[in-house]
Amino acid sequence: MTALSPGATLGIVGGGQLGRMIALAAANYGLKVHVFAPDADSPAFDVAAESTLAAYDDADALARFARSVDVVTYEFENIPAETADLLSAIAPLHPNAAALATTQDRLSEKAFINGLGIPTAPFRSVGTAGDLAQAIVEIGLPAVLKTRRFGYDGKGQRMLRPGEAIDPAAILAEFGGVPCILEGFVAFEREVSVVAARGADGTFAAFDPCANTHRDHILALTQVPAPGIASSTADSAMEIAQRIADAFDYVGVLAVEMFLVAEADGSERVVVNEIAPRVHNSGHWTIEGALTSQFAQHVRAVCGWPLGDPRRPGGVAVEMRNLIGDDVDEWAALLAEPGAHLHLYGKGEARPGRKMGHVTRLLLPP
Amino acid sequence: MTALSPGATLGIVGGGQLGRMIALAAANYGLKVHVFAPDADSPAFDVAAESTLAAYDDADALARFARSVDVVTYEFENIPAETADLLSAIAPLHPNAAALATTQDRLSEKAFINGLGIPTAPFRSVGTAGDLAQAIVEIGLPAVLKTRRFGYDGKGQRMLRPGEAIDPAAILAEFGGVPCILEGFVAFEREVSVVAARGADGTFAAFDPCANTHRDHILALTQVPAPGIASSTADSAMEIAQRIADAFDYVGVLAVEMFLVAEADGSERVVVNEIAPRVHNSGHWTIEGALTSQFAQHVRAVCGWPLGDPRRPGGVAVEMRNLIGDDVDEWAALLAEPGAHLHLYGKGEARPGRKMGHVTRLLLPP
Repeated sequence: MTALSPGATLGIVGGGQLGRMIALAAANYGLKVHVFAPDADSPAFDVAAESTLAAYDDADALARFARSVDVVTYEFENIPAETADLLSAIAPLHPNAAALATTQDRLSEKAFINGLGIPTAPFRSVGTAGDLAQAIVEIGLPAVLKTRRFGYDGKGQRMLRPGEAIDPAAILAEFGGVPCILEGFVAFEREVSVVAARGADGTFAAFDPCANTHRDHILALTQVPAPGIASSTADSAMEIAQRIADAFDYVGVLAVEMFLVAEADGSERVVVNEIAPRVHNSGHWTIEGALTSQFAQHVRAVCGWPLGDPRRPGGVAVEMRNLIGDDVDEWAALLAEPGAHLHLYGKGEARPGRKMGHVTRLLLPP
Repeated sequence: MTALSPGATLGIVGGGQLGRMIALAAANYGLKVHVFAPDADSPAFDVAAESTLAAYDDADALARFARSVDVVTYEFENIPAETADLLSAIAPLHPNAAALATTQDRLSEKAFINGLGIPTAPFRSVGTAGDLAQAIVEIGLPAVLKTRRFGYDGKGQRMLRPGEAIDPAAILAEFGGVPCILEGFVAFEREVSVVAARGADGTFAAFDPCANTHRDHILALTQVPAPGIASSTADSAMEIAQRIADAFDYVGVLAVEMFLVAEADGSERVVVNEIAPRVHNSGHWTIEGALTSQFAQHVRAVCGWPLGDPRRPGGVAVEMRNLIGDDVDEWAALLAEPGAHLHLYGKGEARPGRKMGHVTRLLLPP
């Protein structure tokens, strides 16, 4: 691809906080930003030179949007395949439609990862009650039943526990009859993620792996470096992210969520949970904690520019905590806390479970 | 003043790169931004939730703008006094109209500074050819004749040299007959500036003094710490900035430009050159080089929030170089340079003398 010039226009599909932070990073490089989103309250609209308020299946609006920009990217992976096809027929789409299609279906995603020789939890496709019964026999319990598509933050999934009375037909009915996947439960020690970028020239740059703590299935805390992670494990995690990015001929930032599993011999094994083909909540720490933020890195990649330096300066340790729902009421205390970097997303109502902002703390070496 | 909540709207008068960078910092805190500027190509419009394109003397547009925001600030000091009065009658204006009025007239500015017991170059008011002749006799040559108002980046000034044939009437005619000031030339060793903030609660936080190098009267390079500056001189410079801010009951970021003059005994004397009642080009290094950027600090102050930590982390030295005119053609090389932080302002044509962007380099201690 040809590198864009700084006066170019970046199109962003999706108007949430990820789109907003991509837009802010793009503005810093002199780019114009055009945000396409279906929700009038989209926080990214407030920082974009142009906005299109339209549904993801509005072909005319999508075409006008794509014609008005020099490159299209997106902030979330649940864009319909038809939307991606329509956009990429008019403007370069990064990350590409194949990465999007593969990662928005848990079944194709896990098959793809395994196809690269990278371990995941065991899984079975579940279309019918018979499939579910058979999958439980093969995988065992505990296991997690998930919709193949459109799940996030724990939505569209249900744990199945040993000894639980299980009625496969009733459970599938609860899921509305959509295609599902049963995944073996991984008894992990830690959840880590690698946020990394691949440039248009194939260069790869990973941020340091981070440890993630979830609360009610929503990311609560990210810590870098991941406490207690062996450097060989960190290297292996970054190498897995690179193999995935290369296999997609990926351009942009991606996040690979992984489980670390303790082996009987004391070693650690990395199991990939899922891939997010976009900037990621577990990469927000890079705004202050790395020499290049994930948002700047993503902009560099999708514009065909060289990647920036992903390292943490001076061995600093970083903690990023999400402000979810009424956590945001702490804003005044956080503004007053020395060394706390507060980010708020400009959202209206602080509904339970809604990501309203985050706070990053740099922990300088003692 | 009451502290604003993060959902509030910040009004910014002026649409250049300073307004743009204030808007980006405000967005990071979840604020909405409304930019008022008379130029359709204003770079700040591209990152603002709302924009008003109108002249600074359009009273109706100003009133509508002021009513739509919770606080008004500005990115440059040449706003007409009537504009400031009109705005501040409707919404809180920070920094206040008195700081604006005093600093936009070189004569009142210098009288104000001297009134605080702080030295400036010697100066005389020049209205007539007779005033100029008398002022030259009293101040001596070399000296610099400047318009009292609306000068920046060397515009509206002229050096008068010893031995030069001087026709006072002809020179004043060149200046269009506007009120002028003659300033004694200061044989300075270095130009430094203190960028600092004063909060609504009277707290004061200065960034470290920086050394500034100009080329064709335009800032070319800022270095922090200022090379060769004694720590007592740095303290004295910061203390001067605090006295000025306190005297104005100032709220927001200001920059105080100073000359360092070597005394016969080897000591250094600080002479104030001018005050900019706004964020300043010599503070751009704070985006990466300080724990709080000047833009975030300004937003904190004008919103009535606590000031952030202005320190440089880990004793890092910082260099900020402006990209002026076709310097911006280096953008691709700067993007590829490890550790260079490129900022572009989204301006169209790279005219000579136009500030197109800047690049900041952190020089880690060896």
